[in-house]
Amino acid sequence: MNFSDFDKTSVFRELSKIANSFKHFDFRGQLTATRVEKCRTPMAAGLTYSWAAKALDEGVLKLLQNLAEEQELIKKYRALLDGGVMNTGENRMVLHHLLRGEAGKPVIHEGKNIGEFYRKELDRLSAFAEAVHGGKIRGSGGKPFSAVVQIGIGGSDLGPRALYLALENYAAAGGMKKLDAKFISNVDPDDASAVCASLPLDETLFILVSKSGATQETLANELFVKDKLEKAGLDSSGHMIAVTSETSPLAHNTAYLDSFYIDDFIGGRYSSSSAVGGCVLSLAFGPGVFREFLRGAGEADKLALEPDILKNAALLDALIGVWERNFLGYPYTAVLPYSQALSRFPAHLQQLDMESNGKRVNRNGQPLSYSTGPVVFGEPGTNGQHSFYQLLHQGTDIVPLQFIGFLESQRKDDVELDGSDSQKKLKANIAAQIVAFAKGQENENRNREFPGGRPSSIIYGKQLTPQVLGALLAHFENKVMFQGFVWNINSFDQEGVQLGKVLTKRVLENHAGDPALGSYSKILGI
Amino acid sequence: MNFSDFDKTSVFRELSKIANSFKHFDFRGQLTATRVEKCRTPMAAGLTYSWAAKALDEGVLKLLQNLAEEQELIKKYRALLDGGVMNTGENRMVLHHLLRGEAGKPVIHEGKNIGEFYRKELDRLSAFAEAVHGGKIRGSGGKPFSAVVQIGIGGSDLGPRALYLALENYAAAGGMKKLDAKFISNVDPDDASAVCASLPLDETLFILVSKSGATQETLANELFVKDKLEKAGLDSSGHMIAVTSETSPLAHNTAYLDSFYIDDFIGGRYSSSSAVGGCVLSLAFGPGVFREFLRGAGEADKLALEPDILKNAALLDALIGVWERNFLGYPYTAVLPYSQALSRFPAHLQQLDMESNGKRVNRNGQPLSYSTGPVVFGEPGTNGQHSFYQLLHQGTDIVPLQFIGFLESQRKDDVELDGSDSQKKLKANIAAQIVAFAKGQENENRNREFPGGRPSSIIYGKQLTPQVLGALLAHFENKVMFQGFVWNINSFDQEGVQLGKVLTKRVLENHAGDPALGSYSKILGI
Repeated sequence: MNFSDFDKTSVFRELSKIANSFKHFDFRGQLTATRVEKCRTPMAAGLTYSWAAKALDEGVLKLLQNLAEEQELIKKYRALLDGGVMNTGENRMVLHHLLRGEAGKPVIHEGKNIGEFYRKELDRLSAFAEAVHGGKIRGSGGKPFSAVVQIGIGGSDLGPRALYLALENYAAAGGMKKLDAKFISNVDPDDASAVCASLPLDETLFILVSKSGATQETLANELFVKDKLEKAGLDSSGHMIAVTSETSPLAHNTAYLDSFYIDDFIGGRYSSSSAVGGCVLSLAFGPGVFREFLRGAGEADKLALEPDILKNAALLDALIGVWERNFLGYPYTAVLPYSQALSRFPAHLQQLDMESNGKRVNRNGQPLSYSTGPVVFGEPGTNGQHSFYQLLHQGTDIVPLQFIGFLESQRKDDVELDGSDSQKKLKANIAAQIVAFAKGQENENRNREFPGGRPSSIIYGKQLTPQVLGALLAHFENKVMFQGFVWNINSFDQEGVQLGKVLTKRVLENHAGDPALGSYSKILGI
Repeated sequence: MNFSDFDKTSVFRELSKIANSFKHFDFRGQLTATRVEKCRTPMAAGLTYSWAAKALDEGVLKLLQNLAEEQELIKKYRALLDGGVMNTGENRMVLHHLLRGEAGKPVIHEGKNIGEFYRKELDRLSAFAEAVHGGKIRGSGGKPFSAVVQIGIGGSDLGPRALYLALENYAAAGGMKKLDAKFISNVDPDDASAVCASLPLDETLFILVSKSGATQETLANELFVKDKLEKAGLDSSGHMIAVTSETSPLAHNTAYLDSFYIDDFIGGRYSSSSAVGGCVLSLAFGPGVFREFLRGAGEADKLALEPDILKNAALLDALIGVWERNFLGYPYTAVLPYSQALSRFPAHLQQLDMESNGKRVNRNGQPLSYSTGPVVFGEPGTNGQHSFYQLLHQGTDIVPLQFIGFLESQRKDDVELDGSDSQKKLKANIAAQIVAFAKGQENENRNREFPGGRPSSIIYGKQLTPQVLGALLAHFENKVMFQGFVWNINSFDQEGVQLGKVLTKRVLENHAGDPALGSYSKILGI
């Protein structure tokens, strides 16, 4: 395969040449009803990617198709699915797709069929969840479990938390909600203390999540929780399961009621589809809901193999993002879900994107001279409209926007005011914002003038179901992967988190070394 | 007073001339223990602003002092305090400071002493909260209130919600917690439906917050809640108070148990110190907690009058932000509180900053040719360290960082592991991150190299108390105000939210006008 830096490709030069004329794209003239109808790409689970309000034309699309081919994006994705060592820095395969279907060849590693291993763990955790729901597994005091608490940080927290919140109302409305779920992540002791104080400990099951079994924050929080359980007269080993790798100190350990396994081929931020997300979601909503989620993700993974960029939403979204980042020069993207259920989904995408593609060297460790991953941020609409949208509409800089919306609510509990229900108002706001951002509006009072020219896309579907959520998550995972391939970086390691860990250890062991570090430690009362 | 565009000042040219040499500031050489000791400015409520890890020297500081003088920042702040019409677009005074003390001259408007009006409302809401806590005011079914729900959006939601979360554990640990508080903001019907389903309605008091009494989302949610109350056989007027302006349709209305008033001189995003924040916080924690919060904010407001930038943290923070935005060229800032209690504080600051300073015309409506407010985003540490910090450390672009930390936890409930408790680990992480970002680290493996050169500041204090929280909030409000004065913009209006409202109304009334808007409406099933 051809692993070239992006600026060495011929399409890079061609895109550079034409970029300037698109910095002031004529949305007022170009964004017609026909364009809105036409510029849509079907996604998995009935979702649609609409990219009419992006600053591009057929010439740009043709070059983006060439880019996909010149950088061999589909070929690289296939290689990843087939077990190629795409995490070059850590010399590892990248197998989160295999958690939700077998889109490539069977992956055998050291004689082990990895897909079978993942399916076995899924079956085990499904059976465990059902035993908890059936009252066969109970707390050490004999009570059935009524709550589950995930203890983990980063990928073991943000993804599962965002997905739990995304499905909580759906499950409650459909009678599928089994247990309340909470999350402890921060090493700030107030986090664990408040969560423990809010729950009946004798009815609570904790999930300790750490692939390595060595995450400082998570181990501190495990100790915190065990201390509370024991002080409440409970047997902590009867209230805790572990999700870890088979080689970690947490594995096969009698301190836990049971353990479920992942491996080094599942990166933290890609682990929502594994036992990391599977245990908490299956316990909260039943294993059927989690399997529906996997089904939607698997469907999206298959669609992402399509070489025609107009038929592959993840690929097209990735390429448009590259166009905006490297040629139009926008250093950020806002994610704007019009769905309260997706309140923490932007925080998960922030992690997924910025941790994967916030890299300044290529996959072989050579420094790059072009921009890679953007800053990603966002909050749910309509809330954001009354907040930071001011800058998005009338600030001095342009921020590309990613809307997400659904035709129907999850709870189907609504009220009508002034001739429309709230769901209809919610959708009307999306349509209005897309057009306002793109076309703007003139006004004699310049303070009331909207310049427009703010590009956006929207992903929309009928309702946010488990299957749709899986398709949505996989879309963004695959988008980020394709962008990493374009930029010729390794999207699957995270060396940028290491130095902080080393220096923290030095501070705690009282040999700061660096005098400034010693001085900061002093003023912070360490 | 002199209201010049920033690029017309002489100091703008001088700062431009020297900026390039600071784009590669030698943190490894410059960030010494002495510098960390020295570069600190005391703030209100015992907080400290530490700016050692910023890319500047005494020459830059001297120019920033000149900038403060040339743009008459303190004089403009005084004019604002004294009731000057600083919200030029809407022809209004800007009086949120007056909610927490009288730092300027008494403000008389149409014969009314505004400070006295604010104090009277504070006394009334305090007495109301005490009557609820004492059981004198009860639900229509005779039960004492156990929960309070704020219905509001934007400034009526983000600030009060962030402050409630910031003090919830402090109040619980100190025995001051009176009522649980929840918030309904989004027009998404799933938001209101889920909150209502989670509460005993006969014990719940709702606060309807809308200055104009015409906010679409808030009125839809009011109707939603009233419908639920009535279906539960309750008298909705006995379960709802209003916070609004005296001229709104909600004022003096028997549909509410009581009403508390603000006026046009309190912008939404600046209204946490008014009845908008006061009712929910006083009901949740008692009026004493809210008055402590105001005391801290008032103290910060007084300190912000100091003309010497080295003694005025809000002013210095503002000027350093301008230095980074306009001369070093950074388009964003990350807010990183090492305190789980501040989990939603970055979202509030995002609103405060981006809605205030996301402007492209000056205070007289003339287009500007320099950058104004940056994109603001953030999540609590240590969580962010396992997520988007990868890009902050090793991405291709530099993001300035604003740390916040406390020496002690709020709940004082902690556990020791490997020789340190969690609070100590939390603090060690802050110190380590500041130094890692600034100094980086070389490595033969370029993938493990940290370039450093990432500037940061930290605000730290003993513990996050109500007074400290007030000082912290006022610091950022005043920082944003000073930046607005430098940029010669109006930080107090928000015309950028209007166009979306107009287009939404058109969609709902089936006369979209714009064909693209009609087409988006169609695909979204409106």
